[in-house]
Amino acid sequence: MSRTADTWILAAQCPSRLGTVDVVTRFLKEQRCYITEQHSFDDRLSGGFFIRTEFRPPAADFEGEAFRAAFVDRAAEFDMTFELTAPGTRMPVVIMVSKADHCLNDLLYRYRTGQLPIEIRAVVSNHPDLEPLAVWHGLPYHHLPITPETKAEQEARVWQVIEETGAELVILARYMQVLSSDLCEKLSGRAINIHHSLLPGFKGARPYHQAYDKGVKLVGATAHYINDDLDEGPIITQGVEPVSHADYPEDLVAKGRDIECLTLSRAVALHVERRVFLHASRTVVFDR
Amino acid sequence: MSRTADTWILAAQCPSRLGTVDVVTRFLKEQRCYITEQHSFDDRLSGGFFIRTEFRPPAADFEGEAFRAAFVDRAAEFDMTFELTAPGTRMPVVIMVSKADHCLNDLLYRYRTGQLPIEIRAVVSNHPDLEPLAVWHGLPYHHLPITPETKAEQEARVWQVIEETGAELVILARYMQVLSSDLCEKLSGRAINIHHSLLPGFKGARPYHQAYDKGVKLVGATAHYINDDLDEGPIITQGVEPVSHADYPEDLVAKGRDIECLTLSRAVALHVERRVFLHASRTVVFDR
Amino acid sequence: MSRTADTWILAAQCPSRLGTVDVVTRFLKEQRCYITEQHSFDDRLSGGFFIRTEFRPPAADFEGEAFRAAFVDRAAEFDMTFELTAPGTRMPVVIMVSKADHCLNDLLYRYRTGQLPIEIRAVVSNHPDLEPLAVWHGLPYHHLPITPETKAEQEARVWQVIEETGAELVILARYMQVLSSDLCEKLSGRAINIHHSLLPGFKGARPYHQAYDKGVKLVGATAHYINDDLDEGPIITQGVEPVSHADYPEDLVAKGRDIECLTLSRAVALHVERRVFLHASRTVVFDR
Amino acid sequence: MSRTADTWILAAQCPSRLGTVDVVTRFLKEQRCYITEQHSFDDRLSGGFFIRTEFRPPAADFEGEAFRAAFVDRAAEFDMTFELTAPGTRMPVVIMVSKADHCLNDLLYRYRTGQLPIEIRAVVSNHPDLEPLAVWHGLPYHHLPITPETKAEQEARVWQVIEETGAELVILARYMQVLSSDLCEKLSGRAINIHHSLLPGFKGARPYHQAYDKGVKLVGATAHYINDDLDEGPIITQGVEPVSHADYPEDLVAKGRDIECLTLSRAVALHVERRVFLHASRTVVFDR
Repeated sequence: MSRTADTWILAAQCPSRLGTVDVVTRFLKEQRCYITEQHSFDDRLSGGFFIRTEFRPPAADFEGEAFRAAFVDRAAEFDMTFELTAPGTRMPVVIMVSKADHCLNDLLYRYRTGQLPIEIRAVVSNHPDLEPLAVWHGLPYHHLPITPETKAEQEARVWQVIEETGAELVILARYMQVLSSDLCEKLSGRAINIHHSLLPGFKGARPYHQAYDKGVKLVGATAHYINDDLDEGPIITQGVEPVSHADYPEDLVAKGRDIECLTLSRAVALHVERRVFLHASRTVVFDR
Repeated sequence: MSRTADTWILAAQCPSRLGTVDVVTRFLKEQRCYITEQHSFDDRLSGGFFIRTEFRPPAADFEGEAFRAAFVDRAAEFDMTFELTAPGTRMPVVIMVSKADHCLNDLLYRYRTGQLPIEIRAVVSNHPDLEPLAVWHGLPYHHLPITPETKAEQEARVWQVIEETGAELVILARYMQVLSSDLCEKLSGRAINIHHSLLPGFKGARPYHQAYDKGVKLVGATAHYINDDLDEGPIITQGVEPVSHADYPEDLVAKGRDIECLTLSRAVALHVERRVFLHASRTVVFDR
Repeated sequence: MSRTADTWILAAQCPSRLGTVDVVTRFLKEQRCYITEQHSFDDRLSGGFFIRTEFRPPAADFEGEAFRAAFVDRAAEFDMTFELTAPGTRMPVVIMVSKADHCLNDLLYRYRTGQLPIEIRAVVSNHPDLEPLAVWHGLPYHHLPITPETKAEQEARVWQVIEETGAELVILARYMQVLSSDLCEKLSGRAINIHHSLLPGFKGARPYHQAYDKGVKLVGATAHYINDDLDEGPIITQGVEPVSHADYPEDLVAKGRDIECLTLSRAVALHVERRVFLHASRTVVFDR
Repeated sequence: MSRTADTWILAAQCPSRLGTVDVVTRFLKEQRCYITEQHSFDDRLSGGFFIRTEFRPPAADFEGEAFRAAFVDRAAEFDMTFELTAPGTRMPVVIMVSKADHCLNDLLYRYRTGQLPIEIRAVVSNHPDLEPLAVWHGLPYHHLPITPETKAEQEARVWQVIEETGAELVILARYMQVLSSDLCEKLSGRAINIHHSLLPGFKGARPYHQAYDKGVKLVGATAHYINDDLDEGPIITQGVEPVSHADYPEDLVAKGRDIECLTLSRAVALHVERRVFLHASRTVVFDR
């Protein structure tokens, strides 16, 4: 049996205050829930508190709704927001791509084999290229071309797909388009982008060519929540790969693909396992 | 101010049972202690529970002894053992070495600059070579030669040094001698050895030469608690370093030095920060 | 243009002797070939010499056959064996699998997108499970079940596939069957296996479960040429991944998949780019 | 016997042209020198050629001067610059520091134990703090304070130390002062600085604090040749270390120390082993 096949997750955050851990753990005890893993962190500099608990309920017929309803008042005393996630939950997801297929291919593989607890509802792209890949996986593919003139309209259709599919997470798997402020705001905290550099180094276009010009000996990738400030959203994961003088820009592009895939899928896994907490411009990540 | 300059650490373990987290966190709340960081883990396969809490006490005149005394009964209900560590505590340590000085040098540097919260009380060696290094750092150096005939006697003197200095931790920083079962038992859970291989691969002598013969592409080091079963004690940390065909055995020895130092000092830091829990033949490590 | 789109590769090895580099480089100069990258290594302990040269020919109509014919006598003076590889060469390959699909999926992706200069001619398996994956990529799939009684016969059919497809390399992408000595010998130096441990640690079956029992803090994978001595063939690449106490055996299995894929595909890339030289029980690898 | 105890190094570079490898290897053959390891690289984009050869001479009484004199004309035909380095050569070095001692301590240890083939002639600092450390190692310590007003004068005295000691390499081991353009130029290609970030990210002061503000999940260090453009000199080595939300700026400073030491000492080793070639704003590094 997999480690988490029978455990629920309670993830919560609130302003720092005496009793923040106790309000969670005492309630779990009262509910006769058995805590199998717990992390909490209090950010001294910003005054934020974060807690993530995995627990086994007292019986198989445990009612998440009743638990939630009973906890909501206690949480309110601490201005605490929380999410309760049942075992086996698969988060509904929309993936956005452009022409590069490596991240999409990697996510589809992990999805198909059950390695990532997600439910891909649709793939959206401004190009038709990756349709066969999506179709082979039995997924709807929305080809929504974009031009400067049609951007607003295209984004409206993108948003429609997200809404209609009930996607709780949007993964920008090398989408290569800058989202409008409006769409960024709608997707705040639930859209993860992969940037092919170690942000904040090499922001903007063609980061591997920038890296080549600087003669760096390491290239990397950064998965981050999008926000209105391009390539500046809160970082979730970063990965790195050594390179040498013998790597021309096109070699850096090729070498970077693996680390982009790993960095993005890692960030998605952490997000859907409720291990990531967004707090101003930073994240708290309770990794295993 | 450093992250932990004003935080106490409570580390505890006991058999798995409902309420193990609550008994700790409820008490801390009652004592008006503010939890800044907490990890807990319940080992499903072995039925062991482990918790580590960093907290700020309600006032500067917080009395550790009173806290301890008040908690001991509650802990007993759960067969829970615990340790309470005050901020600024420096664990008394004896370091044992042979002729190789890289790990000793590294530990002394971290000790001298306050990076490791330890108090080195003595350096013990079966060779005289490293005395100047110890002396420059103002440390007593006990040269206790060993032969097959004098092993029991030598170990008795080693034990005497440990006892007299009040050492709570013994670091075998490339000591290169096998301790007797008797001494292993006395030091159970409080002696850390560095082995220059990725255990359980290449147990025994000259692991880098074994690694060369096998043509491996990675060499490594393992820091572990010693036990009666040579090179089989519970592993705390492991580190790794890529090597190539151009590395002869003596190059592997040289390349391995850095990773040995890092792996050992990391294990010592984790131990003295009470992040390591020993449980049968394995460890639970709550890293940051 | 990609780095190697117009470069030929000359890879050679012979016993150590004065003039081994010169015999290669002088010839290239005479042929007006421009060396873009060269590595040579002389193994002091075993007395073997290895050289790999990438070069641009003087004109687009460069004749590999003529070059080969002209060099063969000079090479013979040094008992030198060599291979000349034209730009754009794709090595014919047969992949053998069992039920686990992660390595196959990874290789197919790299093949389909041109990242690996291979030409997959067939997929062979003792199970039917992965046929759809092969078929979607337009590849013949040979389901050749095996039992202790039919092993010889099954291997004969495997060998037939290898022969008929003209495969120069066989990739055991988690095939999970031990090949007979006879087949190992036939495939000497041209069959690469991925083992899911840091060999020589955890040889044999269920290495992740062995790793869990030992409480290691790193798991890894090893790609190696097969030979008659199970899990002891010459190592090409090794990869590693940190794990923790919170990873149960099934988590180690899951965590290991990525490093298995990367380690195997890296080994295949090195092999087909003629960067690996086999020499007794070890390899010389001229990585970029 | 160590790998390089009896091998000479010939390192050369010149503009790309047919015959650049041959001019070196033919000469070595004529001189009956046995090549044990060779790397060459031709940079397609910039048109530069680089070669590094380790060789064993035909006899113990091999005359470097005669070799050099005989090769100089041939090299001239190719506008080739070259350096010949005898086995056992220890490059004379001056180390410059400020108050932080970790890099100095690390370099002194490697120097003292013969791991780095350097001869430290002096330690220069704008502060008195590290004098005892230098003195224990038997090294002259020049305390040369600096103020905006006295900068020119101080640099003149620094230069005097470099000149008088015959230093061929200056190591800025966290010197924390910006050198004048004039001094940078004098030290072009022979002064290595360690910057505590993954350049070009986080240039300038307090990079760990910048990194904290950005919420990065990796911190790093960069060793580079200094040039007139602050923190923009050609990169030799880069290292990286994972960090988490629980690392405050002072924790990043602490965590970064190890990677700074390793990155700097690695760069120094590569430089003194003649593995680094400077070419415009980039380096070619022939690592093992």
